[in-house]
Amino acid sequence: MTTMQAVTKQQPRPGFELIQVPVPTPGPREVLIKVIATSICGTDVHIYKWDHWSQGRIKPPLIIGHEFAGEIVAVGAQVRPDEPQVGDFVSAESHIVCGVCTQCKLGQAHICPNTRILGVDTHGCYAEYIAIPVENAWKNPKTMPARVASLQENFGNAVHTVAAVDVRAKTVLVTGCGPAGLMSIPVARAFGAETVVATDISPYRLALARKVGADLALNAAAEDVVRLAQDAVRGKGFDVLIEMSGAPKALVQGLSLLKPGGSASLLGLSSNPLNDFDLNNLVIMKGITIHGIAGRRLWETWYQMRALISSGAVDLTPIITHEFPLSRWQEALETMVSGNSGKIVMYPGE
Amino acid sequence: MTTMQAVTKQQPRPGFELIQVPVPTPGPREVLIKVIATSICGTDVHIYKWDHWSQGRIKPPLIIGHEFAGEIVAVGAQVRPDEPQVGDFVSAESHIVCGVCTQCKLGQAHICPNTRILGVDTHGCYAEYIAIPVENAWKNPKTMPARVASLQENFGNAVHTVAAVDVRAKTVLVTGCGPAGLMSIPVARAFGAETVVATDISPYRLALARKVGADLALNAAAEDVVRLAQDAVRGKGFDVLIEMSGAPKALVQGLSLLKPGGSASLLGLSSNPLNDFDLNNLVIMKGITIHGIAGRRLWETWYQMRALISSGAVDLTPIITHEFPLSRWQEALETMVSGNSGKIVMYPGE
Amino acid sequence: MTTMQAVTKQQPRPGFELIQVPVPTPGPREVLIKVIATSICGTDVHIYKWDHWSQGRIKPPLIIGHEFAGEIVAVGAQVRPDEPQVGDFVSAESHIVCGVCTQCKLGQAHICPNTRILGVDTHGCYAEYIAIPVENAWKNPKTMPARVASLQENFGNAVHTVAAVDVRAKTVLVTGCGPAGLMSIPVARAFGAETVVATDISPYRLALARKVGADLALNAAAEDVVRLAQDAVRGKGFDVLIEMSGAPKALVQGLSLLKPGGSASLLGLSSNPLNDFDLNNLVIMKGITIHGIAGRRLWETWYQMRALISSGAVDLTPIITHEFPLSRWQEALETMVSGNSGKIVMYPGE
Amino acid sequence: MTTMQAVTKQQPRPGFELIQVPVPTPGPREVLIKVIATSICGTDVHIYKWDHWSQGRIKPPLIIGHEFAGEIVAVGAQVRPDEPQVGDFVSAESHIVCGVCTQCKLGQAHICPNTRILGVDTHGCYAEYIAIPVENAWKNPKTMPARVASLQENFGNAVHTVAAVDVRAKTVLVTGCGPAGLMSIPVARAFGAETVVATDISPYRLALARKVGADLALNAAAEDVVRLAQDAVRGKGFDVLIEMSGAPKALVQGLSLLKPGGSASLLGLSSNPLNDFDLNNLVIMKGITIHGIAGRRLWETWYQMRALISSGAVDLTPIITHEFPLSRWQEALETMVSGNSGKIVMYPGE
Repeated sequence: MTTMQAVTKQQPRPGFELIQVPVPTPGPREVLIKVIATSICGTDVHIYKWDHWSQGRIKPPLIIGHEFAGEIVAVGAQVRPDEPQVGDFVSAESHIVCGVCTQCKLGQAHICPNTRILGVDTHGCYAEYIAIPVENAWKNPKTMPARVASLQENFGNAVHTVAAVDVRAKTVLVTGCGPAGLMSIPVARAFGAETVVATDISPYRLALARKVGADLALNAAAEDVVRLAQDAVRGKGFDVLIEMSGAPKALVQGLSLLKPGGSASLLGLSSNPLNDFDLNNLVIMKGITIHGIAGRRLWETWYQMRALISSGAVDLTPIITHEFPLSRWQEALETMVSGNSGKIVMYPGE
Repeated sequence: MTTMQAVTKQQPRPGFELIQVPVPTPGPREVLIKVIATSICGTDVHIYKWDHWSQGRIKPPLIIGHEFAGEIVAVGAQVRPDEPQVGDFVSAESHIVCGVCTQCKLGQAHICPNTRILGVDTHGCYAEYIAIPVENAWKNPKTMPARVASLQENFGNAVHTVAAVDVRAKTVLVTGCGPAGLMSIPVARAFGAETVVATDISPYRLALARKVGADLALNAAAEDVVRLAQDAVRGKGFDVLIEMSGAPKALVQGLSLLKPGGSASLLGLSSNPLNDFDLNNLVIMKGITIHGIAGRRLWETWYQMRALISSGAVDLTPIITHEFPLSRWQEALETMVSGNSGKIVMYPGE
Repeated sequence: MTTMQAVTKQQPRPGFELIQVPVPTPGPREVLIKVIATSICGTDVHIYKWDHWSQGRIKPPLIIGHEFAGEIVAVGAQVRPDEPQVGDFVSAESHIVCGVCTQCKLGQAHICPNTRILGVDTHGCYAEYIAIPVENAWKNPKTMPARVASLQENFGNAVHTVAAVDVRAKTVLVTGCGPAGLMSIPVARAFGAETVVATDISPYRLALARKVGADLALNAAAEDVVRLAQDAVRGKGFDVLIEMSGAPKALVQGLSLLKPGGSASLLGLSSNPLNDFDLNNLVIMKGITIHGIAGRRLWETWYQMRALISSGAVDLTPIITHEFPLSRWQEALETMVSGNSGKIVMYPGE
Repeated sequence: MTTMQAVTKQQPRPGFELIQVPVPTPGPREVLIKVIATSICGTDVHIYKWDHWSQGRIKPPLIIGHEFAGEIVAVGAQVRPDEPQVGDFVSAESHIVCGVCTQCKLGQAHICPNTRILGVDTHGCYAEYIAIPVENAWKNPKTMPARVASLQENFGNAVHTVAAVDVRAKTVLVTGCGPAGLMSIPVARAFGAETVVATDISPYRLALARKVGADLALNAAAEDVVRLAQDAVRGKGFDVLIEMSGAPKALVQGLSLLKPGGSASLLGLSSNPLNDFDLNNLVIMKGITIHGIAGRRLWETWYQMRALISSGAVDLTPIITHEFPLSRWQEALETMVSGNSGKIVMYPGE
């Protein structure tokens, strides 16, 4: 087989196109992977809508997608025997890092300034095959379902965000129940949180939050979040804030709900700069620690994910609300746009 | 009521005596507590047997016991209104610390060199009442069962030992399934361990270990522990060793089963110094970190215990295998001596 | 002697008055201290000017001042023999904390929500004598000069701010060279910083910054700080930001100068909330960690200060630019207001 | 030039031979380096003497040596432009690691179980040229003297050992003043130690210890180390032990001199297993933390070394006591064997 189906951005304008493209040939240090499952990320939606960020970053033509799981079907000439091989069931770290900068050399490759991202800066996985550097292939247990294995790229954001703070025997507030927010709830539980309270403005997502283990899920658009959240922790405030929404109001509420000495881990990105932000009272005088979070730690987060999934401590399947063949990509993306979904998985093989 | 029943060491020899003694009067900074439940610690057994350590440390006459829960019935004149009050349901930190040494001033009061211990250096809780410094009283939720609240002093050793290392998504080996070892198993689970393997030489205790959540419980007297434990972690070694036995052989096996870069947390005390201990290969060249553990952190461990018990993350009740009225103290102690028990709780009020 | 000189706020309006007041009698858990030296803090200037904050917080009549060193001349009846005694040369932790809240019980008394501050909420040290809780007295080596010992309350802010991050072999940017900023420079040096670059807008302060060890001191009002600071670190960015100015522009410049994965420690308080603050690019996507800093750690910071001063690693004397008898308090305060000073020390005994 | 001088082990017996061998050809991912300076490690002496360890590990013929600095003169075909290039002045990390094991993937490559060592498992640097993997080449500033740059491999052991603990404002005991022990003294100073006390049994080495910054250097063979060391810290014990000797007696003395809650960092390897080691009192009941140290962190330690040397915080030159042309290798090695030396540097070009 020399050509394959791929969902692509062909022109600098909204929308995608499903076309036939050549199957990629792996370079000397690359592996060719047959994609079994690929899941939709919010970033893909931004590219689909052709928003301001996409217009500055994406150079069509480009195959979209960076979350997937599949089987290696070919390896380049310089792939070593102790590296992933044909037949291995793998997921991919979507960040292709340089390996030589200070961050890479200090074990902080997740913030390598030279990072290129699959499906953003190079061809992605909304296709039957993808070729990636062998260093980016992560071997999964054969027993892990492909739809779960596909989610790991995004799950890694949640695990990284929660793991950056100590939630053991702590009270945890999760602001924002999009996919990464939802996934952070069972992670906080698994890592020992005493209480997990979640907030969002979508009843659909709040229902999912309850399903994956939130003790309390509050609608910030309809309820007195501060009072109800405080009631849940006997008025003592929270030890930890996991900010996944990017909404400035959620950030301020979350910080104000922290105890003196508490910690916040921030993954959500805001559409706009912060205004009227009371750094003195929200952060400095309370002795708060804030962790900015980007990507996943290579490879600490991946080991943590494998352990959480394999041991059964975290079950991601309730978060997968829709599944489609890749050929119905448009329906899948529009479902994502509607907001009434968790994670959506597509299958190129169908 | 001016006198009360108390289990005491009256003479410097083996055994205890149940006698009538005056109900204590609390000092200006003390509280008087009516004991509802008191549990037996291995230390009490040492004093009962009048072993070498006891002979050097214990000055009869002395009321025994340091694990208990009860209700405050009187407070001294200098107890402040924001401190525990009459009617509060409390447990006790058994270490009376000086508050002025370097360790106390640096938040390490658990290793205060001036520590005096309830039931060892001052009168204990195998009695209807006990007076303790108000600083040592820890307020429990009213909903916590007294028999569970009593266990916290000992549970705190387990929580402290596990909390000293990061077990999140890690493989954990617990060597020694006495009460503290048993309690460390659900704590490791609750704090996010991927896999918990336990070892002991008592089938009775190994059965309890399985009951409280060990994935695998191995009999070090009858099975090839190293091979079976490695099989449980795919030959990769363990990330964390929780050493609760004090047995040199268990320590060496445990360290040899650690991965390079692993951590060990040691609570168990050996009867004898170590011999033929290969520090080079077991610790230095593998880059192992070892944490010596004493007591419980004041008060971080107590907050952790409350959260673990209140959230239901840890259920200590399967570890309570026997209960007696205090009047049957001898039967209770002999049961403890037999080795076929978990924790044993006694009730002075009965 | 039953009365003493004291600099006080008598009425709710700008200014202070030097009057005769009764020498305080120490309570049962207090010590009476003869003040040898007392230094001026920015907070005292706020109260002097009667700014918005002062009007809401200060209840006249009040003796001002919270930085001092002196000799204990009397102790209350309940002060224990192992606590500070008559003849001891002491400084004071200015935060009187409750000792019973969660923060106090967790070794975070520096952010106790029930904190009362000497010279703000209770009578201060701009006087010949002051009575403080014995728990707040910190014993100094007799060899420490009184003027240096007085500075420790403020020095503790600088030590706490720097110690909250790891500066070993790191490049450090200090924004703001007021007294705490100046003191943070030799601390960063002593704790192993490779390079220390300081910024301010006052040539007087920048000259002091160079004197106490900054490799480079840049005038943010007159120079291209970003370019010159980057030149000093070969364009690699800084590992650590020590923000001491409270100026939003300095905060933003400082964060933008951090490397991916860098850390910021914030002590400076801004007069206004932040606007147009790009949290995404300054913090989240770069994986920055931010530490809000309040007060000094009890008592870790005090032990660190003693070691830094006693070993000679930090010399605070160049930062003391003016000295006055207490009777010339007004001249002292006006010198502080001028901005052309480091720390100013006053002597009640003269 | 096609052949070069090299100091080699030709036969499985004591001694080395200086012979002519072919200049190596770099592989596709290797660089060829002209050796400017090479320094002698204790390991080289073991191989020279052909001790028990050497007999089991070394396979002659082998070029010896793993500490050096030099200039890249050729690079393999697959070396990337953003990697070290011809003309770069480099030192080498002597551990060739696999890059794919769990330790390597978790940023712990210094304890990679598949490590091969230059001059031990592959040809070394006691020669005019050496070819090493490009990943092992570390670019030095051109201004760093070659003899200092050569020392970094060993200096990294000292930096790693000290950096594993927090010495800021702490009292530090260094047991063992061989080269790594000597180098740890200025590192502890640079990282903020209040007091550094060193012990050894060689007056020659103790003199060097004083020269590089020890406050006190005690002869364990002739003085009452415990009493004199305690005197130096006012009887309070030490916060940190840096164990560099491998002598069991030094380890026990060092641990006994630690405060409750102290930390030990162990690099020294003992010739024999430990006997009569009182783990209870030395480690567990005092709440001590022990760090086993191997190699240098890749690449955190190298960045730290560069900063310490470049900033002038550590001056290694007093530790270089002898220099020889490589042709006088035997005299150099015999000087090392005598014990009356610090580091010895040899120059192949002379």
